Amino acid sequence: MPHADPPGSAATDPATAPARSEFALIERYFRRPVHDAAVRLGIGDDAAIVAPAAGSELVLAVDMLVEGRHFLSGADPELLGHKALAVNLSDLAAMGARPRWALLGCALPDASEAWLAAFTRGLFALADRYDVTLVGGDTTRGPRNLCVTVVGELPAGTAITRAGAKAGDDVWVSGTLGDAMLALAAIEGRAALSAASLASLRVRLERPEPRVALGIALRGVASAALDVSDGLTGDLRHILDASRVGATLDLTAIPRSAPLAALFEGAARSADDDRTASGRPPGHRSPRELALACLLAGGDDYELCFTAAPARRDDVLRAAGAVGIQVARIGTVTGEAGLRVRDAAGALLAALPSAFDHFAIG
Amino acid sequence: MPHADPPGSAATDPATAPARSEFALIERYFRRPVHDAAVRLGIGDDAAIVAPAAGSELVLAVDMLVEGRHFLSGADPELLGHKALAVNLSDLAAMGARPRWALLGCALPDASEAWLAAFTRGLFALADRYDVTLVGGDTTRGPRNLCVTVVGELPAGTAITRAGAKAGDDVWVSGTLGDAMLALAAIEGRAALSAASLASLRVRLERPEPRVALGIALRGVASAALDVSDGLTGDLRHILDASRVGATLDLTAIPRSAPLAALFEGAARSADDDRTASGRPPGHRSPRELALACLLAGGDDYELCFTAAPARRDDVLRAAGAVGIQVARIGTVTGEAGLRVRDAAGALLAALPSAFDHFAIG
Repeated sequence: MPHADPPGSAATDPATAPARSEFALIERYFRRPVHDAAVRLGIGDDAAIVAPAAGSELVLAVDMLVEGRHFLSGADPELLGHKALAVNLSDLAAMGARPRWALLGCALPDASEAWLAAFTRGLFALADRYDVTLVGGDTTRGPRNLCVTVVGELPAGTAITRAGAKAGDDVWVSGTLGDAMLALAAIEGRAALSAASLASLRVRLERPEPRVALGIALRGVASAALDVSDGLTGDLRHILDASRVGATLDLTAIPRSAPLAALFEGAARSADDDRTASGRPPGHRSPRELALACLLAGGDDYELCFTAAPARRDDVLRAAGAVGIQVARIGTVTGEAGLRVRDAAGALLAALPSAFDHFAIG
Repeated sequence: MPHADPPGSAATDPATAPARSEFALIERYFRRPVHDAAVRLGIGDDAAIVAPAAGSELVLAVDMLVEGRHFLSGADPELLGHKALAVNLSDLAAMGARPRWALLGCALPDASEAWLAAFTRGLFALADRYDVTLVGGDTTRGPRNLCVTVVGELPAGTAITRAGAKAGDDVWVSGTLGDAMLALAAIEGRAALSAASLASLRVRLERPEPRVALGIALRGVASAALDVSDGLTGDLRHILDASRVGATLDLTAIPRSAPLAALFEGAARSADDDRTASGRPPGHRSPRELALACLLAGGDDYELCFTAAPARRDDVLRAAGAVGIQVARIGTVTGEAGLRVRDAAGALLAALPSAFDHFAIG
């Protein structure tokens, strides 16, 4: 694996220094001063050394983003740097862990300095906000692929898993759901949004914010949690399966942004429904279909979905309030297996939508 | 990211079960019973949870293997599974860390069951020998790319870094050097080896053995260490740079296998030297050039190169003897910067060879 030059040997200005080897170039962009006393040794040896706090457990997650699958080849590298780390921090948030360290495996088709500068700007801007230190990396040539491993820390026994939901618990979600998917639909011409609405939703798609502070605040309060990366109903099923329970959700209680609420209202006014779908081009859904898909199956919002006992409602609201994140109670865990969604009239939806495959960063 | 089915839901026989989704298929091959009490939660949640031992530090490394760069597209998947983990364990060995946990990011062009079965067989065979638990993974479609992150553990403050070498220290290496490169040269028709010799060297190329036990035994004995993945002289320079020292090596002391020793002897008998090199096809070196390149610049042997004070010679030999690995004293750390190699006559080599780029697994 490539290793950095010793400290001090690369102290030239990247903008004016002569061209260097691929590895030296990349080390220049990835190596930074370390401000975390628990990092005994950062980038530049065979491996990094970190010192966990006494009595802590570590939480580990890895995510791989592949060009052509998770992002398009022309994707903005700064957004990509943000997202490659954000999706991992979201996994830590779902466990209630405090992010600590990250490692990056990175295949690049070329050693473009402009690309690297922007990618690392996006990566480190997010890392700095959450006190994450990049302690290791491997860079190589190849089809573009970004593989981030994150390590979080929490007091032993306090992690929130998927397996703790109990019949009678409330189901909650943070923020609003479906924004990233609606933004993508608008960008691709499958939905009409005002410029202002698109701008407000686009940031959800391109620069998702991991709910790190909320996850930490929910330790000892939530009975189960995960992050909504593939869509609410699909992801919630993982909690239900792991906890061997079911759930009934209240469609009208699921929090939505103003543009998505407007899409629902417009669909209701025009009485647009499934009967008109057959006349649409492939991949185009009716406004109501699209609105439902965004809310129930839209991935990439990276909100938290969690369960908690009804006795903990005040604690949930206090925890969320303390970190300034909205949460909404959207349903109930049931002893009966399966996931059901009731509409405004109290009727169960006949079928739950599934998300399109899509590129989150174009 | 993909997540596993809950325990018990995939308890069908992989050989007879009906075809499942790509992710379910892969989870089937990667999820196994966990025998490590420190793993509080393995594959199947948003992240894994592990409990480090009290008073320990963690050692973290990542390596990315890319098809077309580190291995050929037809590479034996079982060897690839071994190697993807072995190169990481070698980094931990170089720090003196005990391997504990691993995470795998994995892009695959298809979900071939045969490929996955063989890849995981190779990966888990090595993992089991070193008590490594795979605690996390992400699988996706894409150009084949294997990104392994490993976490090792050691008592706080006992890691062996690259920065501790002092003038007067001995330079040591484990095993024999150059075997993997010589095997590759023979496979590619650039060197003649008997079938028996090739068979004995080929395993060094295809199934490198990380020197984990030796690394652990050298804690408190070696002053600096790294693994020889890119060639002795190139890698040793990292120790010299990090420790701000130089070294002089004794060519004849560098341990070599019988086939590589025979190549040196044959070259000496035929008085073959650099003067004949201009008549060779591109990429072909004279026997002496090839022998020198294998010994001094051959990567992929994954032996350890380390330094230790002369007063610790008996301790080094005892540590190596206790784990059954040969070590050889090959030179001396100097206050004078730079790396020099003396030949049998005591003359300094005018130039040090560099390795070819090559595919380690074809």
